[in-house]
Amino acid sequence: MSEIKKHQHGGDVYRYKGCIDFSANLNPLGTPQRVVQAVAESANKVADYPDVRCEALREASAAYEGVGPSMLYFGNGAAEVIFSLCLALKPKKALIPAPTFAEYEQALSSVDCQVVHEYLKEEEGFQVREDFIRAIEREQPQMVFLCNPNNPTGVLTSADVLKEILTACEKAGSLLVLDECFNDFIQEREQYTMKAHLADHPSLFILKAFTKRYAIAGIRLGYGISADAKLLEKMEQVTQPWNVSSLAQAAGVAALGEEDYVNEGRRLIWKEREYLREELSRLGYKLYDSRANYIFFYSERPLWEDCKNRGVLIRDCSNYPGLGQGYYRIAVRTHEENQKLIQVLNNIQKGE
Amino acid sequence: MSEIKKHQHGGDVYRYKGCIDFSANLNPLGTPQRVVQAVAESANKVADYPDVRCEALREASAAYEGVGPSMLYFGNGAAEVIFSLCLALKPKKALIPAPTFAEYEQALSSVDCQVVHEYLKEEEGFQVREDFIRAIEREQPQMVFLCNPNNPTGVLTSADVLKEILTACEKAGSLLVLDECFNDFIQEREQYTMKAHLADHPSLFILKAFTKRYAIAGIRLGYGISADAKLLEKMEQVTQPWNVSSLAQAAGVAALGEEDYVNEGRRLIWKEREYLREELSRLGYKLYDSRANYIFFYSERPLWEDCKNRGVLIRDCSNYPGLGQGYYRIAVRTHEENQKLIQVLNNIQKGE
Repeated sequence: MSEIKKHQHGGDVYRYKGCIDFSANLNPLGTPQRVVQAVAESANKVADYPDVRCEALREASAAYEGVGPSMLYFGNGAAEVIFSLCLALKPKKALIPAPTFAEYEQALSSVDCQVVHEYLKEEEGFQVREDFIRAIEREQPQMVFLCNPNNPTGVLTSADVLKEILTACEKAGSLLVLDECFNDFIQEREQYTMKAHLADHPSLFILKAFTKRYAIAGIRLGYGISADAKLLEKMEQVTQPWNVSSLAQAAGVAALGEEDYVNEGRRLIWKEREYLREELSRLGYKLYDSRANYIFFYSERPLWEDCKNRGVLIRDCSNYPGLGQGYYRIAVRTHEENQKLIQVLNNIQKGE
Repeated sequence: MSEIKKHQHGGDVYRYKGCIDFSANLNPLGTPQRVVQAVAESANKVADYPDVRCEALREASAAYEGVGPSMLYFGNGAAEVIFSLCLALKPKKALIPAPTFAEYEQALSSVDCQVVHEYLKEEEGFQVREDFIRAIEREQPQMVFLCNPNNPTGVLTSADVLKEILTACEKAGSLLVLDECFNDFIQEREQYTMKAHLADHPSLFILKAFTKRYAIAGIRLGYGISADAKLLEKMEQVTQPWNVSSLAQAAGVAALGEEDYVNEGRRLIWKEREYLREELSRLGYKLYDSRANYIFFYSERPLWEDCKNRGVLIRDCSNYPGLGQGYYRIAVRTHEENQKLIQVLNNIQKGE
C-alpha cells in the first residue's frame, strides 16, 4: 500500500494504538449490545453463503426508511455502493464539490472518469451555493456527488438549494448522488433529507450507512435508495452476488431495532457539539458551521502530531482537494472524551 | 434482482429452508469453533474501522502460504478480488474455459471486456488441453482465467499443461489468473499448485479463498497472490480502502491456526468422494473425473426439482456456458448426509 494511501483516512486505530479516536465520525455511544449479540449469534451460521437478496435486511430497512424494498441496494459499506454506482454508469465526466469525501473521486477515477471539482469558498464558509448549480449547467456531467451535511466540513446545503441542484441535474441528464450518511445526526433532519423526492425523481440516488448511526464501522454495511430499477439492476450486474456478509446482514437487522439508542446518541451529540464549539472558540480556532456529529476548524498551529503524542487522534484534512494546511476535523464523542481533547489542545497551546 | 440472477448460484439456503445443501462446496466439517469464537469476540470491537492494511491477517497468511506479505491482496471473498483485478486492468479481451466459475465472465463484463470462451469437450472429459494453449496464441487476450481444479467439473489441469499455459500467456502478454480456491481439497495438491512460479512470473496471479477451506462462506474472505507490486497497487486504487471487515480479518487469523481441522476435512472428503462416486456409478449416472471436494455428473433424468422436494439441494449446472441440460454438481459432505443424498436419488429412480 502506498504511503499516500496509508495516511489518507481517519480511524486508523491500528497504527496509533491507545489513542482516543476523534478522526472517525461514529455514534459516540458505541456499538449497541444487541448488534454485538446478533453478530455473535450469526457467527454460528457462517458456513452458509450470505443471502444474495438480503431479504430480512431489505424488509427491515424498507420499513425503517419508508420506501419500497425494491428501491434499496446494499453494499459492503456505503463506500462499495459508490464504487458499484460508478462502475455501473461508467461516466465520462462527473462533478464533485471540494472539499468532500475522498471516495467519490477514487471511485470515479476507477472508471477513468474526468472529475471536475467545484471549489467551495472558505469566505462563504464552504457552503454549496449557486456556483454549484452553474457548474452543473456548464459542465453537463453524467454524475454529480454531493454530501449533506458535507464531509469534512459538516456544512449543510439547504433544501431549497438541493431542489435546484436536482432540477439542474435532471436538465443536464446527470445522476445526483446525494450522500446522506451524516443526516442521521443533524437536528431537523427531516427538513434536509431528499428522500421524499426519490419516487418522482429516478435521477436522484441517496446514499446511507449503518456505519455511523450504530458505530459499526468494522462490519461494513451501507445502502443506496433509488427509484431507478434499471440502475439498481445494473449495479448488481457489476458487483459480486455475495457482497454483503451474513454477519453484516444480521447486524443490520438487529441495529434497526435500536431507535432509542440512536435518539440518545443524537441528544448527546447535540449537547456535546455545543460544548466543543465553545471550548474550541475559546482556544481561538476558527470554526465553520458544522451541523453534523463532527466539527471542522482551522488552526494556524499544526496540531495532528502534537495531539497524537498526547493520546488523541484527530483528522488532518490537508490532503482533501480544496483545503490546505491547518484544517482539522474532530468527531463529537462522550463528554469525558471531549474534555480530554480540550485538555490536550489546552496543553498544546501552553506548550505542556 | 432478475430471475436469472436469483437462481444462478448454489448455496441459496434462504429460499430452500431445511434442505441439506449439496450445492455449495465447503469443508464438510463446518466452521471451526475457534473461528466462531474469534468472530464473536471481534464483534465487541466493530466500532472501529477495519485495518485497511489487514496487517495481522497479512502476516499470518504470508506465513501460511510461504510468500512475502507484500505479495498478498485481500478481498471481500475471492469474488471481490476477481472484480478488482478486472477493474484494475480493464482488459479489452479475455479468454476463459467453458464451463467454469461464472464470476470470471461477470467481472470481465463489468468492464465491457470481450470474453472468448474456449469450450472444453465432453468427449475429453472436460479437460484443459492443447486447444486452450492454441486459443491463447490465437486470441492474444490481456487476461486468461483458469480454475484448477475447475469448477463445476472438478477436473484437474496437469502441472505440465499449466506451465505451457503460463509460457503462452507470457508470450501473449496475458495475465494468467489461476484460481486455486479448490486446490486445498485435492490429493497431491503441492504437485498442482503453481505457487512456486509466482516469484519469477509477475504475469501469474493466484486466487485463494478462506470460504471453502474453513466453511466460512457467510463471512467473505479471499485473497490473491502475485509478485506484480504495481498490479496490486492498482487493485487497491480501484477498491474501497475498508473492503475487508474487522470480523473477516479476525476470522481469517483464527482460521489459519486450524491445520488439523483442514487435514481432517481433507481425509473425510477423499473417503466420502469414493463412496459417492461408487454409489452414483451404481445408479447409472455418468461421472467425470472430479478430484475436488465436489462431484460433477450427467443424468438423463432431470434431478434438481425432485431432489429439492425431498430435502436435498444440488447444483443444476445447465446455466453454465458450455453445458446443457442434465449436468449436476454435488458437494462431498459427511457420510450421514451423503447417504441421505444417495437415498434420495435412489427414491427418485424408483419413483418413490
